[in-house]
Amino acid sequence: MKKQGTLVVVSGFAGTGKGTVMKELLSRYDSYALSISATTRNPRPGEVDGREYFFKTKEEFEEMIEKDEFVEFACYVGNYYGTPKKYVQEQLAEGKDVILEIEIQGALNIKSQFPDALLLFIAPPSADVLKQRLVGRGTETEEVIEQRLARAVEESKGIENYDYLVVNDELDECVENVHQMIQSAGWKMSRRAADVEDLRTQISAFAKGE
Amino acid sequence: MKKQGTLVVVSGFAGTGKGTVMKELLSRYDSYALSISATTRNPRPGEVDGREYFFKTKEEFEEMIEKDEFVEFACYVGNYYGTPKKYVQEQLAEGKDVILEIEIQGALNIKSQFPDALLLFIAPPSADVLKQRLVGRGTETEEVIEQRLARAVEESKGIENYDYLVVNDELDECVENVHQMIQSAGWKMSRRAADVEDLRTQISAFAKGE
Repeated sequence: MKKQGTLVVVSGFAGTGKGTVMKELLSRYDSYALSISATTRNPRPGEVDGREYFFKTKEEFEEMIEKDEFVEFACYVGNYYGTPKKYVQEQLAEGKDVILEIEIQGALNIKSQFPDALLLFIAPPSADVLKQRLVGRGTETEEVIEQRLARAVEESKGIENYDYLVVNDELDECVENVHQMIQSAGWKMSRRAADVEDLRTQISAFAKGE
Repeated sequence: MKKQGTLVVVSGFAGTGKGTVMKELLSRYDSYALSISATTRNPRPGEVDGREYFFKTKEEFEEMIEKDEFVEFACYVGNYYGTPKKYVQEQLAEGKDVILEIEIQGALNIKSQFPDALLLFIAPPSADVLKQRLVGRGTETEEVIEQRLARAVEESKGIENYDYLVVNDELDECVENVHQMIQSAGWKMSRRAADVEDLRTQISAFAKGE
């Protein structure tokens, strides 16, 4: 029975090391592909088209929206950001597990289109740890800290909609936990209905002496 | 956040190496406990009370049924077999993942009492491999083979009710897959509602300057 690629959505509180966990996961295992977003914002120095982002003009992006070529897209501060469907589908077809780092609204959009998608929420080991990370080294202005806390409250709203809680306490353990969750997802019975049916049909045929 | 023990039910076709997989899992990791059944059948030579089984008289067993002390029980060939609730609950409370090897009807009973139980079904990589195992080395009588095939047809009936399909192709990989499935189960969001609520309450308090 063939491994099936899983679409994985990763969200989490700012400052919980999401990016580091994903980078480490991709460097340890070659079965993962990080989805590359398309954007209309200008490339920053050092950014390469097709590596950090697919850079598009506003016209190109809107044509893609028109043609339903995005899994999800959003507009921030006057620029479009979106996940191109083609790349995701190609990678899944190759049996890769495709990882998207997006926020709650995008995550729920994905789940409605891909019911087998796995939604992971990365959290700190405790609220105190999160506070320490948000407050920082005491060099931030009160305004910045307040903004960060307000954002954390916002981010905490949809946690129940995710499939698994991932606690990032110790990096190595966290990466392995994420790997385990994603690998297991490929063997959920709901995704294996065709395999089970084949097996049953063949066993019944044997028993009938066919 | 504390690890929570998971109640794991393992079923599968006869001859797919369930026992070997579980034995290997228990020898590799110390977070597992294999549930010990109670039975009214007589001990066989070498069997120790509390190791292979808890040996009970018919009266003792029926008193335990009366007192609702079994997670599930059944009667085969005139003897009772059952899973004592106390042992399972004690091990789960200690954070252990408790493994029960039982068949479909027992598995469904468990699921109705413990909705967080994880149901794993172990299958061969293909129906042909299963057939080879059932047919054996050509030394079995046709009657034995027919019985085995009929049993496999019976066993294949409830597969969809399980949570995950476990393919036992290569032992080492199979053991690791089972380990991943069980470990991930402890972090399902549905089992972490209290942790999420705590986190959210505390973050909101911080944001309000409490």
